[in-house]
Amino acid sequence: LNRQLANQPVTIFTLMSELARKHDAINLGQGFPDTEGPQDMAQLAADALLDGRNQYAPLTGLPELRTAVADASARFQNIPVDAESEVVVTSGATEALAASFLALIEPGDEVVLMEPLYDTYLPVVRQLGGIARLVRLEAPDWALPREALKNAFGPRTKAIVLNTPMNPTGKVFTAEELAFIAELMRQHDTYAICDEVYEHLVFGVPHLSLMALPDMRERCIRIGSAGKSFSFTGWKVGYVTAPAPLAAVVAKAHQNLVFATAPNLQRAVAFGLNKDTAYFTQLAQEMDTKRQILSAGLARVGFGVLPCQGSYFVMADITPLANGLDDMAFSRLLTEQAGVTTIPASAFYDAQSGTPPRNLIRFAFCKREEVLIEAVARLEQWK
Amino acid sequence: LNRQLANQPVTIFTLMSELARKHDAINLGQGFPDTEGPQDMAQLAADALLDGRNQYAPLTGLPELRTAVADASARFQNIPVDAESEVVVTSGATEALAASFLALIEPGDEVVLMEPLYDTYLPVVRQLGGIARLVRLEAPDWALPREALKNAFGPRTKAIVLNTPMNPTGKVFTAEELAFIAELMRQHDTYAICDEVYEHLVFGVPHLSLMALPDMRERCIRIGSAGKSFSFTGWKVGYVTAPAPLAAVVAKAHQNLVFATAPNLQRAVAFGLNKDTAYFTQLAQEMDTKRQILSAGLARVGFGVLPCQGSYFVMADITPLANGLDDMAFSRLLTEQAGVTTIPASAFYDAQSGTPPRNLIRFAFCKREEVLIEAVARLEQWK
Ligand SMILES: CSCCC(=O)C(=O)O
Ligand SMILES: CSCCC(=O)C(=O)O
Repeated sequence: LNRQLANQPVTIFTLMSELARKHDAINLGQGFPDTEGPQDMAQLAADALLDGRNQYAPLTGLPELRTAVADASARFQNIPVDAESEVVVTSGATEALAASFLALIEPGDEVVLMEPLYDTYLPVVRQLGGIARLVRLEAPDWALPREALKNAFGPRTKAIVLNTPMNPTGKVFTAEELAFIAELMRQHDTYAICDEVYEHLVFGVPHLSLMALPDMRERCIRIGSAGKSFSFTGWKVGYVTAPAPLAAVVAKAHQNLVFATAPNLQRAVAFGLNKDTAYFTQLAQEMDTKRQILSAGLARVGFGVLPCQGSYFVMADITPLANGLDDMAFSRLLTEQAGVTTIPASAFYDAQSGTPPRNLIRFAFCKREEVLIEAVARLEQWK
Repeated sequence: LNRQLANQPVTIFTLMSELARKHDAINLGQGFPDTEGPQDMAQLAADALLDGRNQYAPLTGLPELRTAVADASARFQNIPVDAESEVVVTSGATEALAASFLALIEPGDEVVLMEPLYDTYLPVVRQLGGIARLVRLEAPDWALPREALKNAFGPRTKAIVLNTPMNPTGKVFTAEELAFIAELMRQHDTYAICDEVYEHLVFGVPHLSLMALPDMRERCIRIGSAGKSFSFTGWKVGYVTAPAPLAAVVAKAHQNLVFATAPNLQRAVAFGLNKDTAYFTQLAQEMDTKRQILSAGLARVGFGVLPCQGSYFVMADITPLANGLDDMAFSRLLTEQAGVTTIPASAFYDAQSGTPPRNLIRFAFCKREEVLIEAVARLEQWK
């Protein structure tokens, strides 16, 4: 068996979700909403199953969805893309990431990654023979470590992965930070994989895409997620926008990985992307309210609550409450004793190198307000 | 960019489907039915979108689908599998194949493949650093070339890929052929990836799974397809059955590639797999009728029609009609002049080695009878 893969741990999200179920805990671990997305989208997806279009969709996606993705790219990010040649619909952002890595990496290529990071980046890069150059962002403000980043780029750098809004930190990269990264990319002639699945979930700050910066149009693969933008994480519909020559290679990776995505879900997502801007603003506002409820509650309980400008997640420093336990042990204890499940942040660091911080846990706040309030109440009581 | 992937041609299925659209031809190229699958499954999938289960499914699939896959494995193939630990639901058989290759291959590993072959096998094996050992089956009977197969196995052999019923040949492997392969696998201690997406589409012969043979239970990854078994190719729901230690690694590949598949489609497929055996028998009977209509028609037109015991496809020798044109040129000509689209069989051979036969084209017969009749009429008229 492939040893690298065999040694990869089962994802922390599955692990903690199972633990939550076992202890009947409130699951603020894995990032999925506990409410459904827009009813009109679900209805359209249901109706679309019954009108005779259930055979293979085109490889790169239904034209109506590719057009909607291109329109949204122009409307929200000011990035014009050609729906025909620059959009590839995928089976979720996870597949979009895998296809992007397959499109770019040859054995020996270096990829710059920022810790803490999402848990599929590293195993995929490594299984393709890529070499990860890890740069660490530090709590509580997660500022870009410019010197370290500069040193991570070199003659073998093929790409950098940029996740903004960033999971698990809740950081949203600033215009200055993006400009710094863009300059390194120009100097070293590299690509970027822009994981922007939380593009619509920003709180009081703008989401800026690296792809909108000068010269970056031709270097960036930008990834979006219908799951995250419409609260239907189970549908697994994602999309890539990239310059045509790059998109063509991502499409070939997609051809080998999955080939196509269910037409009825694609049609519903096209409808969703065409919604008024008010929908997206309201989604962010509602999420911000949830964030505030949870953050304030956690602070009252005694956690060191970190700032959060975007995504589904807020990080908390457990030092005041953990009695010396590390993040993993404390997460387990919270599930078992308080009935609240979180994700230990050390899971977002490379298991093979360095020592991760062991004082942080991640809370998902993409849940109903009463659930967040109950979670805080449980933590208060447990404390 | 990854050069291997960049050099991979756009799949012949997309190419020919586009050509068919352009010339308004009857598309007997890409393998998908032109009718819908069971109405009760579509209705269930639609209803399931509206009852609040649209967030991430579990990594390895909904328990109800895993149980249905295990039950079907016992019922149809006499292979008992544990629903909890030995089934992984994937986003179609294409993803199941990719995940299986990821689970098995390390750079330098050899994989035995039989030409003609499905067009994602080779690029995936090669992108993972695997070395393809190709063995060629010869028309018209596609008998197992035992000597060549024996020579293809060696100390570095990790796995063999066995596709039965076989695309594009329509061959169904016999018990003797499977036994011969199993013996080589024992001798060389290798795995098999068993692509059995057409398991229910056999005509007058039994489908036998390699996994059912002695000692093979622990060595085989068996792949099934709801698209092919229920005529919903657009849904992209597939499933893997494998011994627990292997299934666990396939699940990790799936974790990195896609993570999960739409819950409503999974629920509908679970319902489908639990249908009476009569459903599956009738599907095969109807397909056999289609095969007979097309095969007889093509013979009348003057093609050399090859035997076909399973799958959606029948191969035809173009020599009597092609006036010296090769399969690709003749396929184009048939689309443009006769208004009937097929797949040139040379697309199922390695572009990098050997000389493929250039006298065969593949017809898909998974179409309404009147469409097949009209296609034959067009060919008669064109001739
Ligand atoms: C694909 S499961 C993980 C969901 C997620 O994005 C997260 O919890 O970080
Ligand atoms: C995934 S498109 C190809 C469908 C198919 O199995 C075939 O035509 O061979």
